[in-house]
Amino acid sequence: MPSTPDATPAEISAAVTRAAAAAPAFAALAPATRAAFLEKIADELLALGDALLETAQRESNLPRARLEGERGRTMGQLRLFAAVVRDGSWVDARVDPALPDRKPLPRPDVRRALQPIGPVAVFGASNFPLAFSVAGGDTASALAAGNPVIVKAHPAHPATSDLAAAAITRAVAACGLPAGVFSLVHGASPEVSLALVRAPQLAAVGFTGSARAGRALFDAAAARPSPIPVFSEMSSANPVFVLPAALRERGTQIAEGLVASFTLGVGQFCTKPGLVFGIASPEWTAIADTVATRARAATAAPMLHTGISESFTRGVAAVSNVEWLSTTPAAAHVARTDAATFLAHPELAHELFGPFTLLVTARDAAEIRTLAASLEGQLTATLHGTPEDLTAAADLVTLLAQRAGRVLCNGFPTGVEVTHAMHHGGPYPATTDTRFTSVGTAAIFRFARPVCYQNFPDSLLPDALKNANPLGLLRLVDGKPTRDAL
Amino acid sequence: MPSTPDATPAEISAAVTRAAAAAPAFAALAPATRAAFLEKIADELLALGDALLETAQRESNLPRARLEGERGRTMGQLRLFAAVVRDGSWVDARVDPALPDRKPLPRPDVRRALQPIGPVAVFGASNFPLAFSVAGGDTASALAAGNPVIVKAHPAHPATSDLAAAAITRAVAACGLPAGVFSLVHGASPEVSLALVRAPQLAAVGFTGSARAGRALFDAAAARPSPIPVFSEMSSANPVFVLPAALRERGTQIAEGLVASFTLGVGQFCTKPGLVFGIASPEWTAIADTVATRARAATAAPMLHTGISESFTRGVAAVSNVEWLSTTPAAAHVARTDAATFLAHPELAHELFGPFTLLVTARDAAEIRTLAASLEGQLTATLHGTPEDLTAAADLVTLLAQRAGRVLCNGFPTGVEVTHAMHHGGPYPATTDTRFTSVGTAAIFRFARPVCYQNFPDSLLPDALKNANPLGLLRLVDGKPTRDAL
Repeated sequence: MPSTPDATPAEISAAVTRAAAAAPAFAALAPATRAAFLEKIADELLALGDALLETAQRESNLPRARLEGERGRTMGQLRLFAAVVRDGSWVDARVDPALPDRKPLPRPDVRRALQPIGPVAVFGASNFPLAFSVAGGDTASALAAGNPVIVKAHPAHPATSDLAAAAITRAVAACGLPAGVFSLVHGASPEVSLALVRAPQLAAVGFTGSARAGRALFDAAAARPSPIPVFSEMSSANPVFVLPAALRERGTQIAEGLVASFTLGVGQFCTKPGLVFGIASPEWTAIADTVATRARAATAAPMLHTGISESFTRGVAAVSNVEWLSTTPAAAHVARTDAATFLAHPELAHELFGPFTLLVTARDAAEIRTLAASLEGQLTATLHGTPEDLTAAADLVTLLAQRAGRVLCNGFPTGVEVTHAMHHGGPYPATTDTRFTSVGTAAIFRFARPVCYQNFPDSLLPDALKNANPLGLLRLVDGKPTRDAL
Repeated sequence: MPSTPDATPAEISAAVTRAAAAAPAFAALAPATRAAFLEKIADELLALGDALLETAQRESNLPRARLEGERGRTMGQLRLFAAVVRDGSWVDARVDPALPDRKPLPRPDVRRALQPIGPVAVFGASNFPLAFSVAGGDTASALAAGNPVIVKAHPAHPATSDLAAAAITRAVAACGLPAGVFSLVHGASPEVSLALVRAPQLAAVGFTGSARAGRALFDAAAARPSPIPVFSEMSSANPVFVLPAALRERGTQIAEGLVASFTLGVGQFCTKPGLVFGIASPEWTAIADTVATRARAATAAPMLHTGISESFTRGVAAVSNVEWLSTTPAAAHVARTDAATFLAHPELAHELFGPFTLLVTARDAAEIRTLAASLEGQLTATLHGTPEDLTAAADLVTLLAQRAGRVLCNGFPTGVEVTHAMHHGGPYPATTDTRFTSVGTAAIFRFARPVCYQNFPDSLLPDALKNANPLGLLRLVDGKPTRDAL
């Protein structure tokens, strides 16, 4: 792993102080200016050309085509958030006009809108060196909401991080913004991360990574004299349920899709399906055979960095109380166990980051429900079923919707669309805050807070709340949505 | 203080388990049914008649007229949330239809809407025995969002709590809901509160009270194996800034309004103005004289309970580095200090719950900014100014909007409207989560989480997300607000 010196406490403190100093000016930008800044970052990333792709390839072991796609996704995210900022209605502006004749007391004029929360720390993820790293989704959403950002680079890709940071810095300068709007710090030691989270002027934290690191940041933030929110996206086994008729009708197709999904990117996606549940039957046995055969034929590829690779090797070696369907050495690992064993060994339900999946055989539909009810919080849960299967599984859908942020039908959870309706989140330990997503436009809500203005002169109100509605926002006036002026 | 036995650990655990068991059925109610339930609670509260008012009066020392008003507010809150539930658009439904022809990969159909979070614990507040207690705003918003509620009664008004709980229980039965939808537990010991917050099936906590208790609940929830959000509304000094021209033009009127506000309800409001800032001048001295004179003429009234009364007496005795303008004994306490002393003694900026306010004299407008910048998080901040004053104070407005949840012009912060645009919250220590309000319809967002459905058959989608839009919601389809069917 390349080595870059850790930021010193003084450097971390200086970065956060600069961010806090830049916050008011950045918060006060007109939406169009902030949108143009996000688009400029996208342009500057593209202008890095091959250097960015080659550096990321060298540091992450990811193939060039994947990195090209990831760069496109990164730029797409920035532009999508630019569109959200330009539209402006995300601030959820609400106006309750005065009722001077109300008895016993007149009602004052009350208005509220979302405003930036303050400096945000973003922790780059190793598995998305572009799309969830320096210029990734957390940074894009925090900037879109109007907050300065301090990124802690993932130590697995420091040079890639420096390149992306240089692109953002150029965009900051080109748009005439204060330099404190964006900073990058390096650090392989947990002390750097903890010092950043504990910096008094910090307002929120975005993180994607392991449950251990994500919880450590959450704990440090909660223990601050003034606690701040931490959005850690951490750990998910992404269970897949194969219902009986689907098993009969298209078992082979499901098996092939499953192998493609759990080996995609060498199994290094937070949405990798790591648990597959089905009812004992000849078709379920056949699925297992197909998965095992395909897994044995998978081509080996290097993992993101030696830390992850060693951790995966140790993790696979530690899996017990299963029957191995893959052979060793393998590029993709498949094991099988029965429901009773699975329920008796909760560690089998935990995420194992890498190309591994566990098939769990249930006796019947009732045991499938018991298995579903045993699961902790997940980013995703997937059902494969025919229309008849699904109609009979409404209660299972309810169980899964209680435990997962996203429930899928007849697909696979890898591949997270960056759209308005996406929710990439879920109950703990999938994330530390089930109310928010880290992918899609709703991610902006993590980094904003409402501020209410009572009986304010129009000229001193934020534009979002002015009588004339100069930004043309969809607002809630007396509880009714409208774009009309007051 | 009346005494009721503390709930045992087994009783607390049973209440949360019953709530968790009732959660799916309650979550699945049609919006109209849930709305009718909230309205039924309001009816049942009213049906308690004089018994409720007399019991609350005996237990809280609050006058009957105030309690009648508070009962009206409590019923109004329930009915307002019923209207929000019936309208339904609060679930922020979003649909991104499939794009089967997208290259390189088709886009799946992705839809999300807010769903209930699970059992919610509500801690009754002593200063609002009806409106922020058993059937108060936290309970109303948690039930409105579709969650079972377990209330921990405030030990200062156990009989009032039992009456309100009986009203809710009758509404539960009348609407044919599972009994676990609502439970009441009593407890004077912190152990009861902590056991409730630590109950594994609990999903969120609403609290109004002291900074010490609110932080203890927050810390316990953050330290759980599976952390849950805590919405503690705690501590605020509610600074008031009197600008120079307003001081000259209507100093006496401001002084009178201030005394009325800081002595309202014996100073026992979380929005009581406890700090008043002005620039040294003959008019500022005159304001102080008027405030002192009016305070000396205030009529004594008993506080909510002996604990609060003793705490206030100790608090007043501990205030130092000030000049006392009121005489002892007093029904209302006023002190004065200068900016330098205030800045050197941060404890002077802390909330002192009861009829006390501190006037702080600044040298000039720059020192007013220094004082504003020194403040920690507040529920409210208030400016008194003429149009000219306010135009010159735009930077002060920005400073205050960064530090408070609600900024007021030419009014007083006591009196919190229950509307769509209200934000009763603010940065720590005003609350433990600056992103949410505990008053007004947006309070419902504390108790919901998004769930995303990908490629789901229409029949298995929640009604909010079905193609036909059977609930007639305003939805975001491909990012554009519409009530149209798909």
